[in-house]
Amino acid sequence: TLRKTAVLASTRPLSATADDIFAAKDTFARRHIGPSDADVEVMMKTVGVKSLDDLVDRTVPHSIRLDEPLDLEDALSESEALTAIRKIADKNQVMKNFIGMGYSETTVPPVILRNMLENPGWYTAYTPYQAEISQGRLQSLLNFQTMVADLTGMDMSNASLLDEATAAAEAMFMCNGLKNGKRKKFFVAEDCHPQNITLVETRGGALNLDIVVGDPKTVDFSGEDYSGALIQYPNTYGDVINPEEFVKKAHDAGTLVVAATDLMSLSMLKPPGDFGVDIAVGSAQRFGVPLGYGGPHAAFMASKHSYSRRMSGRIIGVTIDSRGAPCLRMAMQTREQHIRRDKATSNICTAQALLANMAASYGVYHGPEGIKGIAERINGMAAVTAAALKEAGFGVSSEQFFDTFSVDVSAKGTSSTAIAQACEAKGANVRVIDDKTIGLSFGESITKDDVVALLEGFGVSGSSLDSAAASAKIGFSDDLVRTSEYMTHPVFNMYHSETQMLRYLKSLENKDLSLNTSMISLGSCTMKLNATSEMMPVTWPEFANMHPFAPAHQCLGYKEMIDSLHDDLAKITGFAACSAQPNSGAQGEYAGLLAIRSYHLSRGDTDRNVCIIPVSAHGTNPASAVLAGMKVVVVKSDDKGDIDIEDLRTKAIKNKDKLAALMVTYPSTYGVFEEGIKEICKITHDNGGLVYMDGANMNAQVALTSPGHIGADVCHLNLHKTFCIPHGGGGPGVGTIGVVPRLAPFLPGHPVIPSGGEGAGVVPKTTGAIAAAPFGSAAILPISWMYIKMLGEPGLKKSTQLAILNANYMAAKLAGHYNVVYRGRDGLSAHEFILDLRPFKHTGIVEEDVAKRLQDYGFHSPTMSWPVPGTLMIEPTESEDKGELDRFCWAMIKIREEIDDISEGRVAVEQSPLKAAPHTWEACFEDEWDKPYTRTQAAFPAPWVKANKFWPTVGRVDNVHGDRNLVCSCPPMDVYTDEHIAA
Amino acid sequence: TLRKTAVLASTRPLSATADDIFAAKDTFARRHIGPSDADVEVMMKTVGVKSLDDLVDRTVPHSIRLDEPLDLEDALSESEALTAIRKIADKNQVMKNFIGMGYSETTVPPVILRNMLENPGWYTAYTPYQAEISQGRLQSLLNFQTMVADLTGMDMSNASLLDEATAAAEAMFMCNGLKNGKRKKFFVAEDCHPQNITLVETRGGALNLDIVVGDPKTVDFSGEDYSGALIQYPNTYGDVINPEEFVKKAHDAGTLVVAATDLMSLSMLKPPGDFGVDIAVGSAQRFGVPLGYGGPHAAFMASKHSYSRRMSGRIIGVTIDSRGAPCLRMAMQTREQHIRRDKATSNICTAQALLANMAASYGVYHGPEGIKGIAERINGMAAVTAAALKEAGFGVSSEQFFDTFSVDVSAKGTSSTAIAQACEAKGANVRVIDDKTIGLSFGESITKDDVVALLEGFGVSGSSLDSAAASAKIGFSDDLVRTSEYMTHPVFNMYHSETQMLRYLKSLENKDLSLNTSMISLGSCTMKLNATSEMMPVTWPEFANMHPFAPAHQCLGYKEMIDSLHDDLAKITGFAACSAQPNSGAQGEYAGLLAIRSYHLSRGDTDRNVCIIPVSAHGTNPASAVLAGMKVVVVKSDDKGDIDIEDLRTKAIKNKDKLAALMVTYPSTYGVFEEGIKEICKITHDNGGLVYMDGANMNAQVALTSPGHIGADVCHLNLHKTFCIPHGGGGPGVGTIGVVPRLAPFLPGHPVIPSGGEGAGVVPKTTGAIAAAPFGSAAILPISWMYIKMLGEPGLKKSTQLAILNANYMAAKLAGHYNVVYRGRDGLSAHEFILDLRPFKHTGIVEEDVAKRLQDYGFHSPTMSWPVPGTLMIEPTESEDKGELDRFCWAMIKIREEIDDISEGRVAVEQSPLKAAPHTWEACFEDEWDKPYTRTQAAFPAPWVKANKFWPTVGRVDNVHGDRNLVCSCPPMDVYTDEHIAA
Repeated sequence: TLRKTAVLASTRPLSATADDIFAAKDTFARRHIGPSDADVEVMMKTVGVKSLDDLVDRTVPHSIRLDEPLDLEDALSESEALTAIRKIADKNQVMKNFIGMGYSETTVPPVILRNMLENPGWYTAYTPYQAEISQGRLQSLLNFQTMVADLTGMDMSNASLLDEATAAAEAMFMCNGLKNGKRKKFFVAEDCHPQNITLVETRGGALNLDIVVGDPKTVDFSGEDYSGALIQYPNTYGDVINPEEFVKKAHDAGTLVVAATDLMSLSMLKPPGDFGVDIAVGSAQRFGVPLGYGGPHAAFMASKHSYSRRMSGRIIGVTIDSRGAPCLRMAMQTREQHIRRDKATSNICTAQALLANMAASYGVYHGPEGIKGIAERINGMAAVTAAALKEAGFGVSSEQFFDTFSVDVSAKGTSSTAIAQACEAKGANVRVIDDKTIGLSFGESITKDDVVALLEGFGVSGSSLDSAAASAKIGFSDDLVRTSEYMTHPVFNMYHSETQMLRYLKSLENKDLSLNTSMISLGSCTMKLNATSEMMPVTWPEFANMHPFAPAHQCLGYKEMIDSLHDDLAKITGFAACSAQPNSGAQGEYAGLLAIRSYHLSRGDTDRNVCIIPVSAHGTNPASAVLAGMKVVVVKSDDKGDIDIEDLRTKAIKNKDKLAALMVTYPSTYGVFEEGIKEICKITHDNGGLVYMDGANMNAQVALTSPGHIGADVCHLNLHKTFCIPHGGGGPGVGTIGVVPRLAPFLPGHPVIPSGGEGAGVVPKTTGAIAAAPFGSAAILPISWMYIKMLGEPGLKKSTQLAILNANYMAAKLAGHYNVVYRGRDGLSAHEFILDLRPFKHTGIVEEDVAKRLQDYGFHSPTMSWPVPGTLMIEPTESEDKGELDRFCWAMIKIREEIDDISEGRVAVEQSPLKAAPHTWEACFEDEWDKPYTRTQAAFPAPWVKANKFWPTVGRVDNVHGDRNLVCSCPPMDVYTDEHIAA
Repeated sequence: TLRKTAVLASTRPLSATADDIFAAKDTFARRHIGPSDADVEVMMKTVGVKSLDDLVDRTVPHSIRLDEPLDLEDALSESEALTAIRKIADKNQVMKNFIGMGYSETTVPPVILRNMLENPGWYTAYTPYQAEISQGRLQSLLNFQTMVADLTGMDMSNASLLDEATAAAEAMFMCNGLKNGKRKKFFVAEDCHPQNITLVETRGGALNLDIVVGDPKTVDFSGEDYSGALIQYPNTYGDVINPEEFVKKAHDAGTLVVAATDLMSLSMLKPPGDFGVDIAVGSAQRFGVPLGYGGPHAAFMASKHSYSRRMSGRIIGVTIDSRGAPCLRMAMQTREQHIRRDKATSNICTAQALLANMAASYGVYHGPEGIKGIAERINGMAAVTAAALKEAGFGVSSEQFFDTFSVDVSAKGTSSTAIAQACEAKGANVRVIDDKTIGLSFGESITKDDVVALLEGFGVSGSSLDSAAASAKIGFSDDLVRTSEYMTHPVFNMYHSETQMLRYLKSLENKDLSLNTSMISLGSCTMKLNATSEMMPVTWPEFANMHPFAPAHQCLGYKEMIDSLHDDLAKITGFAACSAQPNSGAQGEYAGLLAIRSYHLSRGDTDRNVCIIPVSAHGTNPASAVLAGMKVVVVKSDDKGDIDIEDLRTKAIKNKDKLAALMVTYPSTYGVFEEGIKEICKITHDNGGLVYMDGANMNAQVALTSPGHIGADVCHLNLHKTFCIPHGGGGPGVGTIGVVPRLAPFLPGHPVIPSGGEGAGVVPKTTGAIAAAPFGSAAILPISWMYIKMLGEPGLKKSTQLAILNANYMAAKLAGHYNVVYRGRDGLSAHEFILDLRPFKHTGIVEEDVAKRLQDYGFHSPTMSWPVPGTLMIEPTESEDKGELDRFCWAMIKIREEIDDISEGRVAVEQSPLKAAPHTWEACFEDEWDKPYTRTQAAFPAPWVKANKFWPTVGRVDNVHGDRNLVCSCPPMDVYTDEHIAA
């Protein structure tokens, strides 16, 4: 509401203390929360509640309400919080890193840094489910796929996976599946990166696969019992070993070959595809994505066309729109949104879209020649440094290498730790492989000065580089030199000036609807404000440029920030301990279930492998349970959408000797605070199971109740939902888990760096590691840290209250026009609600029509047909103001009128704007206009639309056509040739 | 052109040295320059030259070519340059500043920092001459005007001026003008900020006005010979003195009153307008614009409606478009673009649009209540601190103050310098007023910790703040308390959450065409790449948060960077010394002319006041000359557009005893390298004059020739043209001047901080200061520093060559379709060229029609009707690639065809798309379409337009209507009321 500001009242209390007077004015809650206090009054009237407390009393069961406020620190203002995190950042020491192991120094092109990573137009978008308003990032992700397929020499690539180690584990599942699950063994070469080995072991072990780690030279496949074999090319020590014989040996036995590889090296090296490798995986980090203490980065999986439908992760594909024009969308989308539950062979959901887009843009900006130049420089630096060390008397055993080699320091009578310390004193981090061996790996942002400093750490003069340049072994033997083309597509060859790149990035961004345009009310996705002050620390060098395997004493800032975040999240969830290692909600689920499984096993409870899951659960729940080696038992819902408690009791008792866990989402996926939740937990516990709570709906709980308080044993938190990490157009995400004390020993570990569980630096035997990096996507954790510190308990509580108020306000406004199904006590919802479109089925209008028509109003559709087919689930979040909620409701009410036009016979369904939606400007410009509505009604169906029109760039996308004609690389773009343009 | 990348050739020479191998790959020239090497080959063929050297040989006269390459450092790569400037930045010590004097600590709201100041969508736009594609920043600037008018209590405001001191001087001119130049005296209160006093003295002195600095209590206006009087409210020491009696005294004598004021204080204090003040000036810096070591910041002038046509600077006004819809444009635009040459009373051209937009956004985001809260906190902090010092025995004489007060330290037996040093040791900068007096001024970003540290510098315990809070004199006596409303307009009351603000900023940005969309080929404006790596240091705290009057030893980074930039620019211009103090090109002209004038005076040459200016000169040239106290003599052009040398010789000889200077632009404003330039210089010198060279076209000279080499004595450089400072949507700018040795003593000085000329800290008596801050807009100088360091001599030279090639390529492509007038030797142009539209006058088509039709193609018009009426002047710059040049030429050729349609009778002129242009989507959606062309032809006149359509948001703007009905504040916006939206 608008306020006339006459002579404003003083803001200061009459008897102000110094603290009152000095209190910072840039408080955050009023910036984060959309509705003003005056609006809240109006909205409460609409909902029919007297106060926010009254609202909560009538929605959240009394039995689970917190007894006292969360014990968090007082809220900091925005500038205070920035000052505080600045001090923490300064405790990180930024070194030059020669550690390698899958993480390389890189240079983020400034134009990409500012216009993509630091740009809300890119980082606040959602996963491109609504393809018509997502063509920009779909194009960029297609560029990613094309680039990866080219560089790896494979037919096609996905876009993208959480990290290289996860991709390796996914490849293992894929091999297993391609062999129809009949071959239980999987080979892992011992010269893979340690985190790759561990993740394959963790995940294979959970499924009782036999993971054999060994020497690729001597492994024997002749028993024909290996589904696949993973090699690292180049290997973790940097050696480039021709895989030809290995591939032949494996293929002769029907064993598939997976190569974990390095994209940069492949601009010089013969790629895996040229050796007949079946699946290539790896990380695109060094294509311009900051180290970030381990993440987030985009990994990839590339494979043969024939395996496309087995490939995990998201795949972007070409199709046509309603007018026959080429366009893009996520291919085989049903694999994901309607994940195959307990039939799933992967629980991947979140991808790393923002980082894949950065890597793709790096490829677009540098082009093939640029990439090759960077690679040759890296190779040259490594070779010259190796030669200098050799000349100085160190042992360099590596025969052929791209960017990494091993140094034997024993000949010089010193130890690797002594050398590592000396190098650190010079500002360089190296890898300590064993007592006498140092690993050195080179990245793009390394300079000659850095190498001179490094050599000084070895006691070698930097001037030796000049003579070493003459003797250095640069390049590779002929059998390893790349002879195939890559990145020949125009898109990699036309945007090499900054002006060109800036305009290209902007043209893509302009095609996509993100939070900087309008609300994205996706139920269960919590698209709230990603505040700038939360985002700013992410790209500070002290967070961005840290290697995940740097010595702990250099990372004290990260430690302080992560410990503090873990503490706060533990308080918020009511748990004892947290781990931020999982890179997505689904990985959090998986980590939580593994902790439960490990706990049971640790007690000798080896039979407990049944996981009860409500039919209404997120598809990732059963998928994660299956991958954690559990057997899924489904429990029914009652008419209200609540868990059928009697059915649960029956099934729990029936499985009481086998019951491992119950998985439950709270509030339920129907957006309801189920009254029976405590009883549900009790039934589970009484029958020997532990309760896993899915934290997707945590935004309705914070500071009012908590999973721990309710009685759960584990939950995951989607930090990219409730705790403000932006969705990045389809990732990154963070799936932090919290656990009760007895599960704390079973939090994820890590093979290199201690991160949780018992035993510093050692993977807990029972649980293993969940992600490649010890703290997962560490670089984005400051976002959630800032959020919590800036709101404090009062702000968090008010946010939750407003999330609930906003949902109920919308439900009340829409109630006369649509049925709101599955409401809770007093007819109120939690933080989201479901509109039923099934009653209109007879008109021929389905939920997709409504979703597409919303695009004409400038809105992203709510979640379609989940958890109930034929419905829309709306979650506004607390960050949307009343004006925006009103506009959205207006749109939905107008759409209802358009449905009535059909049902009441005024308009034929095929003539309805609902069916023609979304209306592009091309469609509206047809000279022949044979619709029963005007062009203005088509494109500007409400008065406010004109002021800020967002145009879908393609007509309705034909998913079926694309899936039938799978094209997953950039098609020829004749339109861009100079000839076409020249006058 | 597109390249098939087969197996790429190695980038490495066969016998590479270590330096070859380690050479950085992120070189900058290829990012800055648009055309690829392959494109250059094609383009040279089109132009008909054999090589770039051949091109230069045929365009730049041999007699002025440099004999050897510029002696600049080797080019740094982007990352190397960022590392280098990072090291320089670290030499600045960021303190908390209590200095005041017109520069206050402020908090930039992060959402504005990232989405406006760091966003190319805002910073790369041009001055909004093309209103239809500029409605976003026009709206924001109107917000600025409304906010300033409200806060000052005046009828209307401009948007904006270069700094407060300049605004004060402009107000002096305005008073003089309003009194028809008949009153030669102007009073300046001695308690104004020193830089305000100095600038009024400098500028009034140059016009032989009698500037009287004195005590406002005792000044006697009764002689009715003062045109106006300047007071500072609150004054420089912080005292708030009721101006009522002073205003009455002045008005009784017909003397106008100008108040320099502080916007923040006016949220609490009775504003100047309420006291009857005639003109209010000031700075909006503390509304969220970083200190930046002095700038850039937006100043303002607010006044009464009746003085509107006398107000200097840009004024945004409301008007209607071709469909009668309300829209915005620069009001009374002809005042500026066709500046009144030697009749001018102001030479203001560049404004501070980007900073005005930031300040306006700060107002929008905080709203009146937020602003008042911030002001009350500032006032409270100051009052409590004063009370604590008083309790501790210090003298605090100030009776009533807002944020600033003076402390007498003598009672404690200490000196102000001793206290200042002690405070500095605690991290606080204070103002040393005299031996015993310290000034303390408080800003928004000051915290209690900062004040505790400050008090420790005074030897006072921070704990005394608590008791002081009780005794502090907060607020003002009733006669000074504000009772009038402000910022009541909805725009200041509806975007207070970050989500709302983000979307508002984005919605404005989306209305504006900037360099991230397409080329802006404005002749004489040099809209080239503003690279991200150039921009990044600007917002680093070490550059952004420095007070301009901080002690020199804290500012060593700035000193190093500015000295280095001055050195490089001196080499590039061929001069001995430079000054970056002028805040715009016009101020640079003025500073250069003052230097010439001072030089003549220093030699006793008191009669030399004639300035010869070619008829083709920029309008600011004669305006600056007049303001520098010179008499303008105009010299003719010949048929080719060159200066008529014989006419020059005649006039120079005729004025040989009075000749002060010749002003000349080179290459000429017609885009031609005049062959006679050396002779022109010689004639001037032979007759006792000095040569002032306008550097607007420096982009055609760099590394090929130089003003100094040619024979000029002074030139200014628009760093916002040739040296990559972005245009910011209409400012900021920097007008650095370079001079020969004999003029070096006459570079601008400064009353507080030494900045040039003779005598550290002392204003040279003869020249004075040109800007409020010693180094002008220091915070944006790193942009030009980065540009020069990253290109080095070879990159700068190639940039100049490509600027010339691009212009000639376009001229060649368009030559068959339009007459290119005023070409140089061999029919070639310099870096820009002029298309003649006068031959089409008989069709009824004028240059405005072509300009507006270009908008339909997604292009910004070239410069219209300057320097020749009825023409377009096109300057592509080196940053545009061949594809973009081709698209622009395509558009121009298609437009020519549309003109032919008229001249050949196929289309009536009033039915032509040229007349209806630009076509908004609303226009294209009319159900009735009675045009002879299709909607598609209207809006998508070329195939590439669809891929990246940029929509003008209003139809053709009616300038006359707006100027006749001047409305310069936000009109009511009923459309935004909730009632209108609610369903």
